[in-house]
Amino acid sequence: MKKVITISRQFGSAGRSIGKAVAEKLGYAYYDKEIIEKLAEQTGLSKSYIENTGEHAASTNLFSYAFVGRTIEGQSVEDYLWQKQRELILEIAEKDNCVIVGRCADYILKEREDALHVFIHADQAKRAKRIVELYGETKVNPEKRLMDKDKKRAVNYKYYTNHTWGMSENYHISLDSGVIGIDECIDIIFRLVNEL
Amino acid sequence: MKKVITISRQFGSAGRSIGKAVAEKLGYAYYDKEIIEKLAEQTGLSKSYIENTGEHAASTNLFSYAFVGRTIEGQSVEDYLWQKQRELILEIAEKDNCVIVGRCADYILKEREDALHVFIHADQAKRAKRIVELYGETKVNPEKRLMDKDKKRAVNYKYYTNHTWGMSENYHISLDSGVIGIDECIDIIFRLVNEL
Repeated sequence: MKKVITISRQFGSAGRSIGKAVAEKLGYAYYDKEIIEKLAEQTGLSKSYIENTGEHAASTNLFSYAFVGRTIEGQSVEDYLWQKQRELILEIAEKDNCVIVGRCADYILKEREDALHVFIHADQAKRAKRIVELYGETKVNPEKRLMDKDKKRAVNYKYYTNHTWGMSENYHISLDSGVIGIDECIDIIFRLVNEL
Repeated sequence: MKKVITISRQFGSAGRSIGKAVAEKLGYAYYDKEIIEKLAEQTGLSKSYIENTGEHAASTNLFSYAFVGRTIEGQSVEDYLWQKQRELILEIAEKDNCVIVGRCADYILKEREDALHVFIHADQAKRAKRIVELYGETKVNPEKRLMDKDKKRAVNYKYYTNHTWGMSENYHISLDSGVIGIDECIDIIFRLVNEL
């Protein structure tokens, strides 16, 4: 029986919905936006800053200047946030049976033998359709929105873990939710958590 | 019900054994070394050349000079072999319910909607142990043997497909056989083939 499940996901692949459903089926705590709220309390940074930076800190480090030159405890604001986020994820996993979505949790918790690390992806057309259904149209076309978001996640992951985001070997199981279907993904993960 | 299963695998991850067991359970034909024999018949090239080159043609192209300057039908011997292998895999998938191991079959058959594409991996320590048990010790240490073989597969895959070998998004499902276990991998794939 695995105690902690991390779900990494391409934008629009239904990874969050799958994570939420798995948590409900297992009776586990579910952490996604909850992490943002806790970090806002701890750090005094705004929720919207944390939401934008928590998974893209490295690209913020590299490409933008929101807090240029500003440091907290001798670190850039982005590195400070990464450090706080890392500590919080380690603490949550220690305390709770839980599902954690995103935020490099697979890497942060890779030493835990009671964790199952999952990656959810799907082809671009299916993901584009899903984000328009869920979040509506914007001026930017959906394919570009997918690419921008996943590019930032990949850059962030590389910067803080030195691994390549989305490589099979980072995760115990990777699933194409577009071909396999959301319900079947939930079933496979649920069965695995119970059997391992 | 999927008709064709491709299994790509890290060296030593038990991908072949898993593929063979899935084929037996499903009553499907199993293709691995059989492809080498058929290609030898068709091309007149030796089995050992095909075995060494069929998954490493690009690295042979880049790094060695076995057939330097020699061409068949206006192509390098390696590209000719790739072409023949591609045609054979397309033909096998059309004809048979089957499991095909390696040889970029996931890419070659990616347009087939009745195919399930699987990647099997495991951590280095478990794979090193397995190749020593299966193939014995050699002068080269097992970690280096793993790296050499997978590096060649990755270079070959990149050269002929322009994708990154081992990225989750190339496959419908990727499994860590070391953590999930060989029997459970077989069960998951078997169930998926039947349910999709």
